[in-house]
Amino acid sequence: MKSLARIFLLVGGLGWLVAHAAATRPPNVIIILCDDLGYGDLGAYGHPSIRTPRLDRMAAEGLRFTDFYSPSSICTPSRAALLTGRYAVRSGMCNMGNSRGVLFPDSKGGLPQSEITLAKGLKARGYATLHVGKWHLGIHPGGQPQDHGFDHSLGLPYSNDMDRQPETVKGSEGWAEPPATGWNVPLVRDGQVQERPADQSTLTRRYTEEAVRFISENKQRPFFLYLAHTFPHVPMFASAQFKGKSRRGIYGDAVEELDWSTGQVLDALQQAGIAENTLVIFTSDNGPWLIMGEQGGSSGLLRDGKGSTWEGGQRVPAIAWWPGQIQPGITNQVASGMDLFTTVLSLAGAAIPADRAIDGVDLSALLLNGRPVATRPFFFYRDDKIFACRLGEWKAHFASKSGVGGSAQPAQHEPPLLYHLGRDPSEQYDVAAQNPAVIQAIRAVVKQHEAGLIRGEPQLN
Amino acid sequence: MKSLARIFLLVGGLGWLVAHAAATRPPNVIIILCDDLGYGDLGAYGHPSIRTPRLDRMAAEGLRFTDFYSPSSICTPSRAALLTGRYAVRSGMCNMGNSRGVLFPDSKGGLPQSEITLAKGLKARGYATLHVGKWHLGIHPGGQPQDHGFDHSLGLPYSNDMDRQPETVKGSEGWAEPPATGWNVPLVRDGQVQERPADQSTLTRRYTEEAVRFISENKQRPFFLYLAHTFPHVPMFASAQFKGKSRRGIYGDAVEELDWSTGQVLDALQQAGIAENTLVIFTSDNGPWLIMGEQGGSSGLLRDGKGSTWEGGQRVPAIAWWPGQIQPGITNQVASGMDLFTTVLSLAGAAIPADRAIDGVDLSALLLNGRPVATRPFFFYRDDKIFACRLGEWKAHFASKSGVGGSAQPAQHEPPLLYHLGRDPSEQYDVAAQNPAVIQAIRAVVKQHEAGLIRGEPQLN
Repeated sequence: MKSLARIFLLVGGLGWLVAHAAATRPPNVIIILCDDLGYGDLGAYGHPSIRTPRLDRMAAEGLRFTDFYSPSSICTPSRAALLTGRYAVRSGMCNMGNSRGVLFPDSKGGLPQSEITLAKGLKARGYATLHVGKWHLGIHPGGQPQDHGFDHSLGLPYSNDMDRQPETVKGSEGWAEPPATGWNVPLVRDGQVQERPADQSTLTRRYTEEAVRFISENKQRPFFLYLAHTFPHVPMFASAQFKGKSRRGIYGDAVEELDWSTGQVLDALQQAGIAENTLVIFTSDNGPWLIMGEQGGSSGLLRDGKGSTWEGGQRVPAIAWWPGQIQPGITNQVASGMDLFTTVLSLAGAAIPADRAIDGVDLSALLLNGRPVATRPFFFYRDDKIFACRLGEWKAHFASKSGVGGSAQPAQHEPPLLYHLGRDPSEQYDVAAQNPAVIQAIRAVVKQHEAGLIRGEPQLN
Repeated sequence: MKSLARIFLLVGGLGWLVAHAAATRPPNVIIILCDDLGYGDLGAYGHPSIRTPRLDRMAAEGLRFTDFYSPSSICTPSRAALLTGRYAVRSGMCNMGNSRGVLFPDSKGGLPQSEITLAKGLKARGYATLHVGKWHLGIHPGGQPQDHGFDHSLGLPYSNDMDRQPETVKGSEGWAEPPATGWNVPLVRDGQVQERPADQSTLTRRYTEEAVRFISENKQRPFFLYLAHTFPHVPMFASAQFKGKSRRGIYGDAVEELDWSTGQVLDALQQAGIAENTLVIFTSDNGPWLIMGEQGGSSGLLRDGKGSTWEGGQRVPAIAWWPGQIQPGITNQVASGMDLFTTVLSLAGAAIPADRAIDGVDLSALLLNGRPVATRPFFFYRDDKIFACRLGEWKAHFASKSGVGGSAQPAQHEPPLLYHLGRDPSEQYDVAAQNPAVIQAIRAVVKQHEAGLIRGEPQLN
């Protein structure tokens, strides 16, 4: 019995050594960001006809968020905020009064060099860094992936519906069978155009191959992979293996290919033996583009979609997966894409920039130990203005504009509309009159936030 | 090595014997039917603020249906059809032209003795049978649970909002804090009133205790338990353990208590060692009662709710659980509550009645082997009229009426509206004009069904 006890002690000691070594080596990090994927578009979030078995399994093995927000309801500000941990108004990467809402091919600006991205922070800690997929934070020197901490990059510089060829593609709706050469979007590797127009039907497959190659080449070194898929943003494409296979039409084909892609990434981690040292986050940059009809996604029971500060515009699917570290479950904790910045830097043992306001909070105690996150406000910015604010279960709307049409000018709400998102997740029953103290508390946090706000130089003109 | 091989053979042989013994003893069957629970109301179906960990686990261990229909969008016809495997128009248990849509306390009729219920069929095969919960198929001799194959019964004879006391409860909405004595509904055991008014706040707990007792007392004999919960039908009540605990308010409290209840039932099966010989089905009698505001549920991304033949009125959650027999997964196969009649009788080795039309089909090959079910039409009856019909992925609406208000008269659709439910699960994009052959095929199956239809004697006058 003594020798048996000694063996157990020895094994226990080895276990401690292994655990300690793992703790001292910073974890690999993969952020998989979909484009316009809605809250209701995955099996694990209740979609009836899109089949996502790998993401459902990822959710069952990991932590599925019910109340996770994209930092903005549109693309460029959302991505700027995700990578910097700051609302886009701070970096100037949103409409600051007289520009469009996102970057276009003719835009001159981009994410300023003064910003510290997650990739920069991790690179400084010795991480190998790769961006694959959509960028949409600038095409000129200073604003490109290689200027913001990424060793390498492969993908589209902006949305796949830009550079539209008017003689090939008419109108802006009904792209059920989009022509392969309808958009002159380039595929760029490390700043060099590799293919133009990019063959969009094979993009998800090629992004995935690039991601898997990067994983297999970086088993010995901590890495950060930012896999920012082009789809399911219109025009919708899927590779031959997926086209016509989904019940949900071409939109479902595209999402089911993303499901496959995610499975390839997780499999590659398992095969490389590094899954237990890798945090993977799957999420979306904003809600579904509802005006696209069958080519737009679904926000499930949430109100409205992309382009609005109603829940459907910004509440998105989010799954955190890290075998052996994250316990399987569902969390109702409020979180946002900006929190990934702070959380990942914290897990990597990197310093959080102290010379500027950071809006993201550290979720690592939630991820690793299931601890609740302290209540703090989440601000729903439309362009550079706060349209709504969530505090705990409450959300007040000071202004609103639907993403599916209606009046060109936002509606102003004074007194604000107030919804209890737990009892009323679809934002149907305004209870402002019954809860003046809540309105007052929300007004106070908005005022405090705005008083301390330093607005960035406008970048989208 | 030889002796090892012999041991494996022996173990294999024993396994065969055990499996064979199990196959010859008919399985226990439990149907858990909720009242007005919507498609979007469970965690496993994407609800963000109602926590249903036990049902989510049941879904993860069992087969979750994405396309399962209640036989009607309202209570009495749905339950009559579930228990008889036939559309309610055949038993006369719906509005046949000049009655209300469901039974009321002053109704004279009930489920006719000439009908063969699932309980009758199983009782003839030697099953112990128990009904617990809401009945709503008749309160007079001939129409009560004991007249329809149930050895015993405990529950409410009709909906918990009937027998309303007008001096205590005003109006019909806003029952956020319903008074305990607001409804003079009796709790009836084996035909005898046991408590009046029933203490609704403890109903779910007491139903559950009755169900668990029945399971523990019937380990040695096949049994059928029909656990037809009173909730989440308004007025909403929950026991002290659950009241005020849910993020979703009193509606969530009630659903979370149903989640607990289901866990108690599954635990009781495991503790009795009979889980491997018990098929459990969890589902709802119709969609959510949307006009009840926060006291009504959610149909998720589906259109409309209770009282309508849009998807939200009849597509409901459904989970089939049978450890060792049903493989975990999600199925897109179309099924309905009426199929439970045929499936369960088939699994029990009982004959399907041959002297009458049966609308349910046998799902056992789907449940046990994952085999697809042959395509057949599903008819959406409103009262005694077919308002819509689903055939494969297509659904044609000949008439429609919202459950949330609008015109008093149904809208007539000629030509019919046509939706592809895979591509367009929210029924937003009418594609009738592009698919005349589909319309023609659906008209043909409706015509065939109506030509063979023998209408029952009206029971709801």
